[in-house]
Amino acid sequence: MTLKELGQRTKLASKILPTLSTELKQDILKNMASNIRLASEAIKVENQKDLDGANEKGLSSAMIDRLRLSDERIQAMAQSLEEVATLEDPVGAITEEYTRPNGLLVQRRRIPLGVIGVIYESRPNVTVEAASLCFFAGNGLILRGGSEAYHSNQFLVKLLKSALAERGVDDVINMVPTTDRSSVDELAKMNDVLDVIIPRGGEGLIRRIYEIATVPVIAHYKGNCHMFIDESAKLENAVPIAMNSKAQRPGVCNALETLLIHENIAEQFLPAFLSEADKQHVEIRGCAKTQTFSEKVVPVTQEDFDTEFLDLILAVKVVPGLPAAIDHIQTYTSDHTEVIVSEDKEHVETFTRALDSSAIIVNASTRFNDGGQLGLGAEIGISTTKLHSFGPMGLRELTTTKFVVTGNGQLRN
Amino acid sequence: MTLKELGQRTKLASKILPTLSTELKQDILKNMASNIRLASEAIKVENQKDLDGANEKGLSSAMIDRLRLSDERIQAMAQSLEEVATLEDPVGAITEEYTRPNGLLVQRRRIPLGVIGVIYESRPNVTVEAASLCFFAGNGLILRGGSEAYHSNQFLVKLLKSALAERGVDDVINMVPTTDRSSVDELAKMNDVLDVIIPRGGEGLIRRIYEIATVPVIAHYKGNCHMFIDESAKLENAVPIAMNSKAQRPGVCNALETLLIHENIAEQFLPAFLSEADKQHVEIRGCAKTQTFSEKVVPVTQEDFDTEFLDLILAVKVVPGLPAAIDHIQTYTSDHTEVIVSEDKEHVETFTRALDSSAIIVNASTRFNDGGQLGLGAEIGISTTKLHSFGPMGLRELTTTKFVVTGNGQLRN
Repeated sequence: MTLKELGQRTKLASKILPTLSTELKQDILKNMASNIRLASEAIKVENQKDLDGANEKGLSSAMIDRLRLSDERIQAMAQSLEEVATLEDPVGAITEEYTRPNGLLVQRRRIPLGVIGVIYESRPNVTVEAASLCFFAGNGLILRGGSEAYHSNQFLVKLLKSALAERGVDDVINMVPTTDRSSVDELAKMNDVLDVIIPRGGEGLIRRIYEIATVPVIAHYKGNCHMFIDESAKLENAVPIAMNSKAQRPGVCNALETLLIHENIAEQFLPAFLSEADKQHVEIRGCAKTQTFSEKVVPVTQEDFDTEFLDLILAVKVVPGLPAAIDHIQTYTSDHTEVIVSEDKEHVETFTRALDSSAIIVNASTRFNDGGQLGLGAEIGISTTKLHSFGPMGLRELTTTKFVVTGNGQLRN
Repeated sequence: MTLKELGQRTKLASKILPTLSTELKQDILKNMASNIRLASEAIKVENQKDLDGANEKGLSSAMIDRLRLSDERIQAMAQSLEEVATLEDPVGAITEEYTRPNGLLVQRRRIPLGVIGVIYESRPNVTVEAASLCFFAGNGLILRGGSEAYHSNQFLVKLLKSALAERGVDDVINMVPTTDRSSVDELAKMNDVLDVIIPRGGEGLIRRIYEIATVPVIAHYKGNCHMFIDESAKLENAVPIAMNSKAQRPGVCNALETLLIHENIAEQFLPAFLSEADKQHVEIRGCAKTQTFSEKVVPVTQEDFDTEFLDLILAVKVVPGLPAAIDHIQTYTSDHTEVIVSEDKEHVETFTRALDSSAIIVNASTRFNDGGQLGLGAEIGISTTKLHSFGPMGLRELTTTKFVVTGNGQLRN
């Protein structure tokens, strides 16, 4: 079957999805989970083929770790399917309703986006996560995984499709059968089938898809996250919030990368913070003022301010006040997450209004910009572009709305 | 100034817009309107230069008509600015608010998209319409009009900017100073400045921009609108609704193009409808069954079902029932507008759920799929792609939301 045929089949099959009841979709998700639990040994056999191939190719141990489906990860995949089944079904919700002067009743109703393409790299659990969210939100799904995870992905999709087949809708999820690079190019231009492409992977993949795609793309670039410690900050809050934001999991997009400190609080804040950072092995790259507080501080460069370290490294700068902090953030932001630690309501309001990143957080860790933490239930990614969805994307962000207009013979004149 | 510099200036200036008060934005809109009223004679002088050029080039009279700024059209532009000033300011609205178990208060707040590029063809009033909506929704705007309207557009932008300059924000609206084709190409790839491009013009322009753009594009393709007359339809409704949909203004996207009729009502409906269509000079291209009711009916082709006539021509087909009607529509739809005329609640619900076009209308004219008619106040276009906005786009559709998360020291663990 050609990719074009696969696309058409998926699109045709997906037409039925908006009319499926929530209960039916929940049953299918639970059956998918059960298929995965029952087949866990077989999954590991298929996964081992990929691991062997990865070892032969000499992939890095980090890459091989991402590829591995342990018992724990297999259980987590099954659980994620069951969890999505407990979330609110977004499809069909009436988001707005009003009557026009001529008596027309106008509603906006939530509908699926249509068919979603997910292009991803090495992690095979993305197969299951993407399938659960896209399916429950009523969308057809075309998956295109990485070549390293070929056997794992093919087998996982088979298990998912078997639960769909019991209800006669197996074609709503399909996996591209090859891992040729050309299949990415073809998907990126398949406007007659795909309503959106969501790439999951490194910056290289994402940039390439943006470059070639005529289908709309929602993606997540980088998280160059900032925090401003205002002069009114409570010290007992400020140090733990900054440390948690940097060090709790430094390799993720919502970790802190640059810390800005009001000069009036630098004398109190910096000694306590630098000592804690030292304990937790965080390298500090600081401005001249920051350097006066510790010999271990490395001079910071302009490039550092532009860098998503994804590591135990933090850029630090003392600023004369809130406007300078806002200026700095507006210059270097990647529109992901910005935090203010402050007890001054007016400053909090100014910061919150002036900056339009996907999450503005007041007196808490950057690490809360996450679908699960914000109560979205599950996320398919964090969008750093403003169109359609900005920030963590859950089920609702995989839908759109249509107008439903009910009259009794109204005409235009 | 290069286009790149113009873009950077617009982006920088637009940073202030989210913080402007509603009152200030309203004042600016009213001053823009007043500038246009006061300069109406000068506008006509500039417009005449474009009209002279168009005559020299031998443009069609339809094209020249679109270009012309009569007194009436100048007043209408001023009025549209004043009307936008009376609409609800979308920026800053809290669209959702809840508290997480850990005490974090989560809000979603409406924010501008950022900087919008509007690329359009001959109608100079688009300059003012786009400016009023984009500005009031807090967005920077880069306009790129057609070469035929060069003098009119430049002068209108000068009048708009003069009202912005009084408040020191004149750089939030800029016009590309040239009408080279290369400026469209450059805008289409200006991802560091533009958050979205909205093309306003013919299918050729739109397809070209989709093809080359790396910036997200929201556009409106064609409106191949359908109507299904169910067996339970009230005849006194069905004939006027179908005629109004086809003939009230046949050249627009929300005019009816294909009429589907339940075979059980064909005997009652078609004679009355065909007689009315004849009176209003509508050419009917019908199926074999339709042809039995009048000699004037031309045989319909598959291609007709795929055509947006934009003229007094209508494709007509008698179908065995609702499922066949839904099948036909799913095959030929352009996702714009579909109408059912029916008194059967179950059929209405089935039709409404099965079809995901931008507007599903029950017992009223297709012509109500329009921002003004649906109460959006004003529209910048009708999106036929599902991402971000589906259907008429008003002020709210020119915004997105960010998360604002307020805590008192919460950390991730």
